[in-house]
Amino acid sequence: MSKNIISIPSMLTELYEIKAADGYFNSSLKDTVAYFDLFFRKVPDRGGFAVMAGVSQVIDYLKSISFSEEELDYLREKGVSEGFIEYLRNFEFKCDVYAVPEGTPIFPNEPIIKVRGPIVQAQLIETALLMLVNQQSLIATKANRLVRASRGTVVAEYGTRRAQGASQAVLGARAAYIGGCSMTSGLVPEKEFGIPSVSTMIHSWVQMFDSEYEAFCEYARLYPDDCSVVVDTYDTIRSGIPNAIKAFNTVLVPMGKRPNSIRIDSGDITYLSKRARKMLDEAGFPDCDIMASNSLDEYLIGDMVSQGAKVDCFIVGERLITSASSPLFSGVYKLCAIEKNGEVIPKINLSENVSKITIPSSKQLYRLFDMDSGKAIADVLTLDGEVIDEKKPYTLFDPDFTWKRKDVENYVARPLLVEIFKDGKCVYKEPDLESIREYCADQIDTLWDEVKRFENPHKYYVDLSKELWRVRNRLIEEYKGVKE
Amino acid sequence: MSKNIISIPSMLTELYEIKAADGYFNSSLKDTVAYFDLFFRKVPDRGGFAVMAGVSQVIDYLKSISFSEEELDYLREKGVSEGFIEYLRNFEFKCDVYAVPEGTPIFPNEPIIKVRGPIVQAQLIETALLMLVNQQSLIATKANRLVRASRGTVVAEYGTRRAQGASQAVLGARAAYIGGCSMTSGLVPEKEFGIPSVSTMIHSWVQMFDSEYEAFCEYARLYPDDCSVVVDTYDTIRSGIPNAIKAFNTVLVPMGKRPNSIRIDSGDITYLSKRARKMLDEAGFPDCDIMASNSLDEYLIGDMVSQGAKVDCFIVGERLITSASSPLFSGVYKLCAIEKNGEVIPKINLSENVSKITIPSSKQLYRLFDMDSGKAIADVLTLDGEVIDEKKPYTLFDPDFTWKRKDVENYVARPLLVEIFKDGKCVYKEPDLESIREYCADQIDTLWDEVKRFENPHKYYVDLSKELWRVRNRLIEEYKGVKE
Repeated sequence: MSKNIISIPSMLTELYEIKAADGYFNSSLKDTVAYFDLFFRKVPDRGGFAVMAGVSQVIDYLKSISFSEEELDYLREKGVSEGFIEYLRNFEFKCDVYAVPEGTPIFPNEPIIKVRGPIVQAQLIETALLMLVNQQSLIATKANRLVRASRGTVVAEYGTRRAQGASQAVLGARAAYIGGCSMTSGLVPEKEFGIPSVSTMIHSWVQMFDSEYEAFCEYARLYPDDCSVVVDTYDTIRSGIPNAIKAFNTVLVPMGKRPNSIRIDSGDITYLSKRARKMLDEAGFPDCDIMASNSLDEYLIGDMVSQGAKVDCFIVGERLITSASSPLFSGVYKLCAIEKNGEVIPKINLSENVSKITIPSSKQLYRLFDMDSGKAIADVLTLDGEVIDEKKPYTLFDPDFTWKRKDVENYVARPLLVEIFKDGKCVYKEPDLESIREYCADQIDTLWDEVKRFENPHKYYVDLSKELWRVRNRLIEEYKGVKE
Repeated sequence: MSKNIISIPSMLTELYEIKAADGYFNSSLKDTVAYFDLFFRKVPDRGGFAVMAGVSQVIDYLKSISFSEEELDYLREKGVSEGFIEYLRNFEFKCDVYAVPEGTPIFPNEPIIKVRGPIVQAQLIETALLMLVNQQSLIATKANRLVRASRGTVVAEYGTRRAQGASQAVLGARAAYIGGCSMTSGLVPEKEFGIPSVSTMIHSWVQMFDSEYEAFCEYARLYPDDCSVVVDTYDTIRSGIPNAIKAFNTVLVPMGKRPNSIRIDSGDITYLSKRARKMLDEAGFPDCDIMASNSLDEYLIGDMVSQGAKVDCFIVGERLITSASSPLFSGVYKLCAIEKNGEVIPKINLSENVSKITIPSSKQLYRLFDMDSGKAIADVLTLDGEVIDEKKPYTLFDPDFTWKRKDVENYVARPLLVEIFKDGKCVYKEPDLESIREYCADQIDTLWDEVKRFENPHKYYVDLSKELWRVRNRLIEEYKGVKE
């Protein structure tokens, strides 16, 4: 039952995708092979980079595309052609798919998923792919901001109740873990993905009993090995913490047990946590952690840390699970080439907005790392098949301001797009979630601090090879020329 | 399959809810009857009101609470007591539940769901109830803002690809429909809820063909009864619209068919739509609609409308389905009373923040309507069982600034909380979605324009009866007194 909310029905698409796919099926283009890039346009929160996530769910989805008779009946009612309905009934996935591995830092305008296959299929999967990548990359990116702000203090994801739906409650927790959160409040994320769940006391517990002290004592009796109490129901300093200490002494100490933590959920948490730390230390509970919650985000956490708040765990709910300050991940999926008589014909979308002009052709994405420092220098998009000779210096140049140039030496060029489906069959051995999380932390370590800061981060280079730049310029001139 | 993403697993809860429920089960409070209020704290986008939604999914969830053996095994591993596991295995819902019907305008701090039942159960359902109400009320509220801004022009929801998960793609579309959107791009929302789906042309269609004109002609041939073309792939005015007109004339007119619409997805839509309208009219297609998309929101739509844009349908994607400018619905679920020896004992949560202090006791929520104008005057929270005598004037007063008073006469007082579960059984006949949508529009009509405007909306009164106010004040003084 709890698995259902993770799986994506094949019907999770839009009428215009079905119409396009049905249309291609019934047109001369039916067997044309097309190339699509999935890329994003803007880093959330005006950050310097985003974190790739959602590939595992993309794989699950692509492995399981199928339509029930009931669904096919519905499509028939919508006017879908009988031929296409039959095609969907016997659907067999045939595309090649490449993806940047989960946990990789990613940048605007570079392909993070690349699909090559019959246009009918490559079109049909657009909506689900976008949704899945947008959904988790958003949260992995936000989670990493929180973790950077906390400077080593544990961050726990507590968002289920404010999540935009059950799917996000669960997959958002997964993405948060990839981005660096250590724990989740949710049960399903632990059960399905092994993310450690964490608990604390809920306010109603305190209210239910005749007194706060009695409430704490009863909880300590029931949970002597995992006793965490919330101290702000009536008055943190004058009532909550003294009652907690009293209950710890009355119930836990005689059992030879130690308290786990107290939680502060309102008020000036920096001030209260310092007071609480002192009171707990003086009472002989220096090992009792302090958890803080209350609409936290990376800026509040950063402030608390810099002011010396004595917090051992930041609990972040709504502002993480919705990425509240920047709740959109701007992934798009654009045609970049077709094959015609065995040749790759690049395609472009010019649009009325310069920022929406696409990068044509079938491409590979390289990340150049400095051999000495191990730091990432730049990403380079090349035409498929182009080779970067690491023995030679590589000249980076800005695709818009081409006089901005930089010669790179002493580097390795690592291709980032990994094949995950070949001719419709999954050929990728997925790393486990722990490995993804570690890989993510390692890869973010390869970024310069200037790229990682929140305010005016350095714009990381995402450049085009000379060859690719020429192809793009030729197409722009061709189309714009036609209309002069 | 597509139904799965709408249903909520009973495991969609948090470890601390399970620990609290298990704790109550094993404490002296096991059989205590508790009252919880679900209310929200802030209207998204600093608006004057929100729109209730999600009750139907709450009903589905409460009807279907059950745990599989696999789930119970997992809970055992988490240390849940055997007694409670047995209780969950044979779970039988026993609570009374009241809810404000979907589509009703709602205001901060008033109970929109009320639960009365054994504390173990009333606690257990907290997370799912919050998530379900937050999820859809957020989007219904946003959708109504868009619809108010469009002043009668159709608004279509097109958010699936940017939704925060599959669940929101579908239930967000449902909520958007309640709030006043007319159509959705999604297939599942139509299939499961009957929301009309709408289609247009996708950019890749234009790129796939050798020329834009050929792409339009082929589409018109395939979809002569529903021909909608996107005109901004290369150049809206010089290429897109002329090619559309040419294709309509070449393919549709000889068949005796009319085009459905063109879509503009970039550039200055106000300007382009006026130019497009003129070009289409002059070419003999005054019946061809103009659809506009491109990261629209209520402010952009309002601007376009006031500048006379010639748009027949606003397509809104990401900023609706995520409520991008205000992506949180701040629902909370708070204990407000318990029963002891047949008596209702009010409970309060004081917190360190004044805005977090709760309203105690078991309550009813009334909306007072002016008999002549039909307009909503104020909401009043009373103690359960209090009667508002409509024949007598009613004195409203501000619970914080009690000298602010107003006598109301010539009114009707309508209770808003409707019983949906009695002793665990559903007793509510759910209205269909069309009726909810109509009811929503009607109820929003009862609000003064001052409450509905975007900038500095009038703060609608949500007042406490004298009796309730006294109970609350007594509790605040009691608790604050204890600690002096």
